[in-house]
Amino acid sequence: MIKYFEKDPYAPIQYLYDVEKVLYKSKSPFQEIMVIENPYFGKILILDEVIQLTERDEFFYHEMLVHPVMHAHPDPKNVIVIGGGDGGAIREVLKHDSVEKVYFIEIDEEVINVSKKFFPTVACSIDDSRVEIKCMDGAEFVKQREGDIDAIIVDSTDIVGFAKSLFTVEFFKSVKDALANDGMFVTLSESLHFHKDLVIEVQEAMKLIFPIVDLYTASIATYAGNWWTFSAASKKHDLRQMRREYKIDTKYYNDEIHLQAFMPPKMYERLMQRKLQW
Amino acid sequence: MIKYFEKDPYAPIQYLYDVEKVLYKSKSPFQEIMVIENPYFGKILILDEVIQLTERDEFFYHEMLVHPVMHAHPDPKNVIVIGGGDGGAIREVLKHDSVEKVYFIEIDEEVINVSKKFFPTVACSIDDSRVEIKCMDGAEFVKQREGDIDAIIVDSTDIVGFAKSLFTVEFFKSVKDALANDGMFVTLSESLHFHKDLVIEVQEAMKLIFPIVDLYTASIATYAGNWWTFSAASKKHDLRQMRREYKIDTKYYNDEIHLQAFMPPKMYERLMQRKLQW
Repeated sequence: MIKYFEKDPYAPIQYLYDVEKVLYKSKSPFQEIMVIENPYFGKILILDEVIQLTERDEFFYHEMLVHPVMHAHPDPKNVIVIGGGDGGAIREVLKHDSVEKVYFIEIDEEVINVSKKFFPTVACSIDDSRVEIKCMDGAEFVKQREGDIDAIIVDSTDIVGFAKSLFTVEFFKSVKDALANDGMFVTLSESLHFHKDLVIEVQEAMKLIFPIVDLYTASIATYAGNWWTFSAASKKHDLRQMRREYKIDTKYYNDEIHLQAFMPPKMYERLMQRKLQW
Repeated sequence: MIKYFEKDPYAPIQYLYDVEKVLYKSKSPFQEIMVIENPYFGKILILDEVIQLTERDEFFYHEMLVHPVMHAHPDPKNVIVIGGGDGGAIREVLKHDSVEKVYFIEIDEEVINVSKKFFPTVACSIDDSRVEIKCMDGAEFVKQREGDIDAIIVDSTDIVGFAKSLFTVEFFKSVKDALANDGMFVTLSESLHFHKDLVIEVQEAMKLIFPIVDLYTASIATYAGNWWTFSAASKKHDLRQMRREYKIDTKYYNDEIHLQAFMPPKMYERLMQRKLQW
């Protein structure tokens, strides 16, 4: 069988996937977009040669990106999702009844179109009436908001290339200003196995801006390094405590996982002191 | 650079590693043994084309295989380690002052020799005076013991080929008979991402024999599926509670990780009812 060779330049292991069929391949103004069919993972979305999601395991990432912050928040009504053109994060956000409005800011419209066509179970909520799509730079959109947002969720590509602007102190400052007093923020922050220093840098940058910053993880087989981190920040409330009942339908995340996913205190301290030796 | 293509037939992703140098390659009576040098992971030990350990990250696996059971046990003196010819599990077992005797049962003497030569930081405790090496089938050795062992630790290759005999109900029965009343047992049990059904089967088989069976995990980047499981069993004591102070030197495991690594109750129940959908 033909193999797809993932060319992630930042991973010390490279990953090969069987390809039953190449379903789509094109270049948008921003990146190369590709969809392949794999016998185990189903359809796989690839942007600039890096795997973004597979039909089989996307829920681990999307649930863990969205639900910890949505459950730690007392009443999230207005949400911004930056990136995540596939619609997976939007789908999870809309499982929360409190949500009235989701600003869906995806720079590359073509990713939305491809996802609607090839990943209907992921893109299923994009056309919900509460969703307002804007195809623009997420950092620019956040700058325009003024303290009316409850949760901001960044679902970008890796912290390189055009996604870099979503990991700067300047961006985190705009995020804080855009959030209401109860507001919370979460972003992917790469692998604790392969990119530990980058995880620390994101945490340090967020701590310059937010009074409360935390880190949680999930194991994701199709992301390089797989011990995937999520960096979360909050203006007021602790992120480890759930402030709303867990009553949504999920495959992995639940109230137990919410508590267990956060890095334990001593390990977190050693990480931030750069004392974890790997 | 030359690539090493890991040919694990049971993994839906294949893994490629850069090879700076092939340091060793030979066939023992049991398997092909290979050592390569990789720029990120350092030296890598490969048995029958499947990666067993890397210098950089072996401690995640060895610490998590050994310390939960050794800390849950009130006073482990006599220990059997089956497999683990590299010596990593032995090294961790001997960090516990209570240990008086370790029976080190490795079927393939050549793995021990190769590890002593190429992985001195892993094999460092093999020649300790408390260690008795026996190059024989672990299942046969366990059958000969009668209730005098405190902990039995299986550090085998994957649950296929000649390691299969270490995952049968018959073997688990011998293990129980070999253990003292406080006795505990732990074995690797593959990936929760890629081999969920196999994890369930191992747990079910252990439950036919032991009154207490549990499951914990760690994320390991170099094992296929990476969300690695360890199946543990006990004749008397709960495994989640530490019965001895944590005072050894470790890089990953500690008292926090001991608690956090076990699968939360509701998720465990859903797993065993075959309700986890992936």
